[in-house]
Amino acid sequence: MGNDPSFAALGLKAWKTQIDRADKLFGSLSAVHDAMLPLLALRERLHPEFDVAFISNPDRSRADIPSHEQVRGAWSVVNAELWKGFEKMSSNDWALRHSSVSEEDFAKDPSRNRFAVLLGRTNHLSYHIGQAVLALKSERG
Amino acid sequence: MGNDPSFAALGLKAWKTQIDRADKLFGSLSAVHDAMLPLLALRERLHPEFDVAFISNPDRSRADIPSHEQVRGAWSVVNAELWKGFEKMSSNDWALRHSSVSEEDFAKDPSRNRFAVLLGRTNHLSYHIGQAVLALKSERG
Repeated sequence: MGNDPSFAALGLKAWKTQIDRADKLFGSLSAVHDAMLPLLALRERLHPEFDVAFISNPDRSRADIPSHEQVRGAWSVVNAELWKGFEKMSSNDWALRHSSVSEEDFAKDPSRNRFAVLLGRTNHLSYHIGQAVLALKSERG
Repeated sequence: MGNDPSFAALGLKAWKTQIDRADKLFGSLSAVHDAMLPLLALRERLHPEFDVAFISNPDRSRADIPSHEQVRGAWSVVNAELWKGFEKMSSNDWALRHSSVSEEDFAKDPSRNRFAVLLGRTNHLSYHIGQAVLALKSERG
């Protein structure tokens, strides 16, 4: 971050803070973060196979659930890949349409841009960190 | 929000989303949000008296704890007052130093501005919403 931080840089700082906290706790956020790669037009997904276990049928079937180690590894790789992409994005890039909104819908509501995805995901992360901290406290209490 | 949303407008949208969710659940966030008023140079605090119960001695003494109705009322008033102030702030205003960082420290790290406070508090809100949702689920389960 330079001497005059852009709002995009501040959004990134908030993201990084929550990722660092989540790194210490961890959940099944890997699949959601993996899907951010195409959403922000950075690259194709790294782990689409996680969707079945975590998104399409969460908590339903115990079959094909990746191991703790697999998920933890994917979490690190996906977040490193996202961060690499984030760093290359200019303020103008952040203001572009994200890939799950149509050009027509984006024309009607330009707030559905990539920066909004960053803010939304950062908050989502914080939401689950709060739950993980509470669950850990309950277990220990 | 106009046709070309600024990043500040997107930050505000994220804040509003989390406030709306918290409104339905609620915690003891009133005191923290009240302290945002001077932090963002909007006005003096409305409820400094809540600090004793919620910030200085949280969960210690049962004396002088405001009633549920008092806290709920303050929550609405404080958030309305914040929102009124937010709406008047320009992107330049958001980039200014917040009041708990010195001019000297701000010169060293200009990311400690008012927009960073908005992002941080929005995430903090989301953190506690996650906990409230989990606690409610546990009670009902």
